[in-house]
Formats: sequence, structure tokens, C-alpha cells
Amino acid sequence: MPKKNLLYAQSGGVTPVINASACGLIETARKNKDKLGKVYAGKDGILGVLREELIDTSKESKSDIAGLRHTPGGAFGSCRFKLKGLDESRAEYERLIEVFKAHNVGYFFYNGGGDSADTAYKVSQISKNLGFPVQCIGVPSHDVESMASSSTKVFVLEVMGRHAGWIAAAGGLAQREKGDPPHIILFPELPLDEKVFLAAVDKAVKKHGYCSIVVSEGVKDKSGKFLADSGRRDAFGHAQLGGVAPVIAGMVSDALGYKNHWAVSDYLQRSARHIGSKTDVDQAYAMGKAAVDLAIAGKSGVMPVIVRTADKPYKWEVGEADLAKVANREKMMPRSFISSNGFGITAAARRYLEPLIQGEDYPPYGKDGLPAYVRMKKVMVAKKLGPFEV
Amino acid sequence: MPKKNLLYAQSGGVTPVINASACGLIETARKNKDKLGKVYAGKDGILGVLREELIDTSKESKSDIAGLRHTPGGAFGSCRFKLKGLDESRAEYERLIEVFKAHNVGYFFYNGGGDSADTAYKVSQISKNLGFPVQCIGVPSHDVESMASSSTKVFVLEVMGRHAGWIAAAGGLAQREKGDPPHIILFPELPLDEKVFLAAVDKAVKKHGYCSIVVSEGVKDKSGKFLADSGRRDAFGHAQLGGVAPVIAGMVSDALGYKNHWAVSDYLQRSARHIGSKTDVDQAYAMGKAAVDLAIAGKSGVMPVIVRTADKPYKWEVGEADLAKVANREKMMPRSFISSNGFGITAAARRYLEPLIQGEDYPPYGKDGLPAYVRMKKVMVAKKLGPFEV
Repeated sequence: MPKKNLLYAQSGGVTPVINASACGLIETARKNKDKLGKVYAGKDGILGVLREELIDTSKESKSDIAGLRHTPGGAFGSCRFKLKGLDESRAEYERLIEVFKAHNVGYFFYNGGGDSADTAYKVSQISKNLGFPVQCIGVPSHDVESMASSSTKVFVLEVMGRHAGWIAAAGGLAQREKGDPPHIILFPELPLDEKVFLAAVDKAVKKHGYCSIVVSEGVKDKSGKFLADSGRRDAFGHAQLGGVAPVIAGMVSDALGYKNHWAVSDYLQRSARHIGSKTDVDQAYAMGKAAVDLAIAGKSGVMPVIVRTADKPYKWEVGEADLAKVANREKMMPRSFISSNGFGITAAARRYLEPLIQGEDYPPYGKDGLPAYVRMKKVMVAKKLGPFEV
Repeated sequence: MPKKNLLYAQSGGVTPVINASACGLIETARKNKDKLGKVYAGKDGILGVLREELIDTSKESKSDIAGLRHTPGGAFGSCRFKLKGLDESRAEYERLIEVFKAHNVGYFFYNGGGDSADTAYKVSQISKNLGFPVQCIGVPSHDVESMASSSTKVFVLEVMGRHAGWIAAAGGLAQREKGDPPHIILFPELPLDEKVFLAAVDKAVKKHGYCSIVVSEGVKDKSGKFLADSGRRDAFGHAQLGGVAPVIAGMVSDALGYKNHWAVSDYLQRSARHIGSKTDVDQAYAMGKAAVDLAIAGKSGVMPVIVRTADKPYKWEVGEADLAKVANREKMMPRSFISSNGFGITAAARRYLEPLIQGEDYPPYGKDGLPAYVRMKKVMVAKKLGPFEV
């Protein structure tokens, strides 16, 4: 029996270190050529798998694969396509199995957030049901951001995090001493009380001369509505595009009259590989490597996880979680990580977050002054099936 | 006669490398203690000078002053206060001379953009008129930004540049090969033709699968109005705060329906010392050093400038410019640096810009994972004059 091939797909919003996981996965698979076949990558994630658009990563050079470790973004493309339940999306699941069969795929690796874990889990179920069992391994996508701030009257920095405030909380790490910025962090886990918030801004400006605010994109008002979607319309009656920072800045201007600036980090943050921490890169790589190790060990319906064994000095090891247990569960900031007034992080949060931003892992730079990010050749695998509409 | 003291003030929006100039200036002054007195720094720029709030930098440790080289922001504070003409602001100018006299200041260094050069020039004029001639030296504030981009349908990145498109143009350096992002750069030097722009976006999406746009905050419409101030009001009738990115994104959504993301870099960019180029840091330091050298040489009403002597390999030396000639003149992007369709940079622009982003000069990092930025002790000089209202 020929060795089974591996199919790897990235999913969802990419991160500065998702390619480090791809690197760990492909390098580990290459080291195990006696047991494993080729690594195929879905072009643009699961969509490419459905369309039978598979990139043959064996055509990528050793140095380019190594370069994935320091290259942000999604090297093989990603997508926002979510497979629904087995009944609703039966045709898609069956197509996946068809593609697996046609290309002798015995291992499916899905690299992304909670949705990806869910999809990997469902694929593992259906592959058994359809009599072509494939080992399905999730690959968690990690990324941590830290940010700096600067002195001004009121500065509002919007960071990612639609439901969970981890990135906003990471901003709190910049506060080395009492009174340091950020003075206020707004978490999606807690509804915004405008009056209390504005009083806190005013107090900070009066005390420190300025107020630095980090706001998670998913902050909601008391009625549970996203502030960024607060029904505001522009002069032409168009619904205003997201962006909670200008809403917060507008509140401050209107109520307090302080001159302010706001920034929306969005993709600047997501693509900021140049400032990714060594911990983050190492763990992302380890997740890719561990996913292949799990496959070789015959596991399916699982994903590797980082298990912290000590805070100080920080120690971690790779563990294993059942996809069924982690799928579709978003890990919110525990209330004990948010200060009692709701606007800061606690010592417990700092203890948890601080190790994650430690260490530098700068990308190499080219002669042109730009980071030497690699770009895949993306040689496609010859199709064996008919077309499939998605 | 006791040695004359130096008075240094930062002005305007700070940059990732303005403190490198302060570092060069203070270190050079310390090396010339036989000729020069102490270096005082105006707390919050010229405002501190007017208020006689002078920081005695001799109280800062050698290692902290050295640390200014890698610390972004304005270490002694800055301000947006602009001295008007000699007639209108006579009281302020006279106050400055009073402060100079009271603290035996013989050298005035003003570190900032075009306005600062103008102020330094005016101060040099008035100090002569009032019989207390002070050597006034401008210190230009340099900073260059490069940025990365990421794959999506339409991505709009707003960068700083209210009148001149240098930072937006620097974004063009990320385009290594034809078809690389950014596909469209919008310069404040050229009015936006919405129809032509939207056609270009559509073309890019159809050709490359996505379109990455860099927009300078100061882009204007054909009538000369800032797009960011286009009179749009929110649901409560409040004037919408600046931010040209959401306006551009709205245009794309409305006309083409493409899903998009936008980011406003603002202070993220201004404070991004961690990714400042070595060229930028070296030149900022050199400007601080050269300012003191000019002072020792007995010059006034001048500022050091970077003179490029070769493009490839890049060579530069420190020259000298008359403040009267550079004050209040903003250097716009020459039309020859903007591609004929108005949406990109030319080879000439690349030749000019590329050396400026070269080399890395990372800050050191602390155990907590944060850059080890220094903070001044800010020991104040005892006041000798009465209060002064500004």
C-alpha cells in the first residue's frame, strides 16, 4: 500500500505566525518520509480542497519552507468558508472524501481558530461514516500582540477581538507602573457603561495629562449591540463601516471635548510578523510539528495544545485535546483577569500573558530593506475529479 | 564669562527617531564640556521654555541618555504650540529672550518639522534685535515608515501625511514585482477622481484577486476639500472625526460591493521605533550631533541637513541649510516620483526612498518582553522669573 499523503489547509483570518505552524508541519512530514507521503496544501484553504485545487508542497524548496517560519500571512491562501452541519452541507463533506480518495489522502490538518477545529472534527466523523477514515488533526493558530503607545490627550487604539478580549488585554502589559498607559482597556466581555467610561477618561486626563485607551473591536453597549455597528449612517445614508475606535473617540469629543487621535490596527496587527514574539513563533512551529507527530501516532479527531507547566520561569509542553471538546468554543477572558473597575488587567492576567510576548524572533531583511518573506511557487496537483461548485 | 548653556526643545508630532536626535545632541554637548555649559530641555517643547519649565538633562544618567537612541516618542515632551509672527507674538518672543538671559542660554536648538525651523529662525532674528544674540539651530526631524500588507479583497491602509505623500510613497516600496501590493497609492498631491479610482480598484481585484490601497490622510477631492472632512455626520448629527480610510472603504463598498478592511496607522506608525530603519536612526542621531557642532562653530539661523551624494550604494553627508530658506516650506513629492496614472511610485521615487528604509536597529528588550525604552527623570531647573501665561 502506498504511503498516504497529508492534506494541510489554513483557515480564517491569518496571523503573523500561522505559517510557522505550516513550516513545523511540512518539515516534520519531510523528516518522516518512510511513513508519510506528500504534503498537499489546499489553495485558499478548504475551498481549494473542495475545488480539488491542491498545492504540491514537495515542489517548494527546503529554504522556502524554512522561510515560512518568519513569513506572516497565509502562504497557501486561506478562506472564510465554514462548513455547516453534516446534514446541511452533506454534498461538501462527501466531496472532501472524494478528493481525499482521489489523492490518497490519509491525514487532514486544519490550521485555524475554533471553526477550524469544528470542521476538522466533523470531517473525522464523516470520513468514518463514509468508509474512508482519514486522520483529522486540528492545528491551533496562535498569535499574541503587544503594542506601544504615545503621549497625547486621548488616544484610542482599536485592536482585534470580536468576542474575546485577549489582544486588548495584551495591551495592558505595556503598563509597567501604576499610571502608565494604557489607562483604560475596553473588553468585549463587559458591556460599556458610557457614563462610567467617560468619567474614567476624564479622571485619567486630569491625573496623568492624557488618557490612552485600548478598545477591542467587539465591545458592546448595554443592550448587547456592537458599538461598531451602532446604526450610524454617513451623510449619504450609508451604514457606516465597522470601526469602534471612531465611535469611542466621538464619545470623548462630544462629552469631554478633548482632542484625540484614534488608530485601527486591523491587518497591521495581523501581519506584524516583524514584532512577533519568540514564544509565539516557537509555539506555532511546535503546533505544526506536533500535528504530524499525532498523525504518525495514528491519532484522529485531536489537536495539539500548549500546556503551561510553570509561570515563572515560563515552561510549556505540547499536549493533546479532543476536537469534539474544543470545537466552536471561544475562550473568553476570565473575569478574574479583568480588574474590578472593568478597565484594566489583573496580576493574574499579567502572569498569564507576559510569557507570551517574550523573546524576539526577527525575520531576516533583504537588501531592499524589506523583510525577506518567502512566497510559495504553488505548483498545483493535477486534478482527478470533475468540477465542484462552491 | 561662564560657558553658555544649551536649550533644546522638541516640537510637533513626535517620531520614532526624534529622541535619537536628542541623544546625538546631548552626547555631543557632553563631549564638549570645555566649550559648552549644560543642556536644558524645554518641558513639553517651547511651552516649557515660555513657562520657564526647563529640564536639567545633566541629571540624566549616561546610560539613559544613550537609551534615547532607541526610544520613540518625545522624551522631554512636545507641543503643538506655534509662535506667530514677531508682531503678533511679541510678548512670547520677549519672554523667550528673558528665559535665555535668566538661564545663561547661548544656544537654542529646536527639533521638529517645518514650523520648528520657522520658529528657530524667528528666535534668531529677535535675539539679535533685543541685544541678546543666541545661536539658533534647527534640528530636522526625520522619519520614514515602511509597511507590510496582507491578502484580502480590498484593504485600505491610511497613513500620515496631510500635505505631502512621502509616507504613502514609502508604502510603494513593498511592491517588489509588478502586481505586488500595494496596487493603488493615493497621494495628497493629486486630487482624487472617484470614478477613475474605482475603476482601478475593480481592475486590480479582477486581475490579482484583491486590491491593496495605501491612502495618505490628506487626500483631497477635486474641489480641494479633505476627504476625511467631507462633511459627513453621524446619526446624532455630529461631525464625523477624521479618518480617510473609512471614506475610501465606503466608496468601494457602495460602488463595487467588495468586502473590505481598513486600518488607520496613526500613532502606531509614529511610535513604531521597533521597526525604524538603521538609516533613519543614524541620520536622526547625526542631526543632533551636527546641531551641536554648528553651535560650537559659532553658527546661528541654520540647521543641519542630510545631503545625498550617491544612490547606489547610498552615501550621505551632513550639510547645512539656512533656516530662512527652509522654514515653512513643505517638500512635496515631485510629480516625477508619482506614476503617470497617479496610483503608484516611479523608479526615481524608489531610488530615492529605498536607501531610507535599509538596515535594522532594533531596540533592546526587557525581561518583560517589552522594548527597554528609557524614561527621563525630568529634574527641573529652579525658576528665576515670574510666571508667564500661555
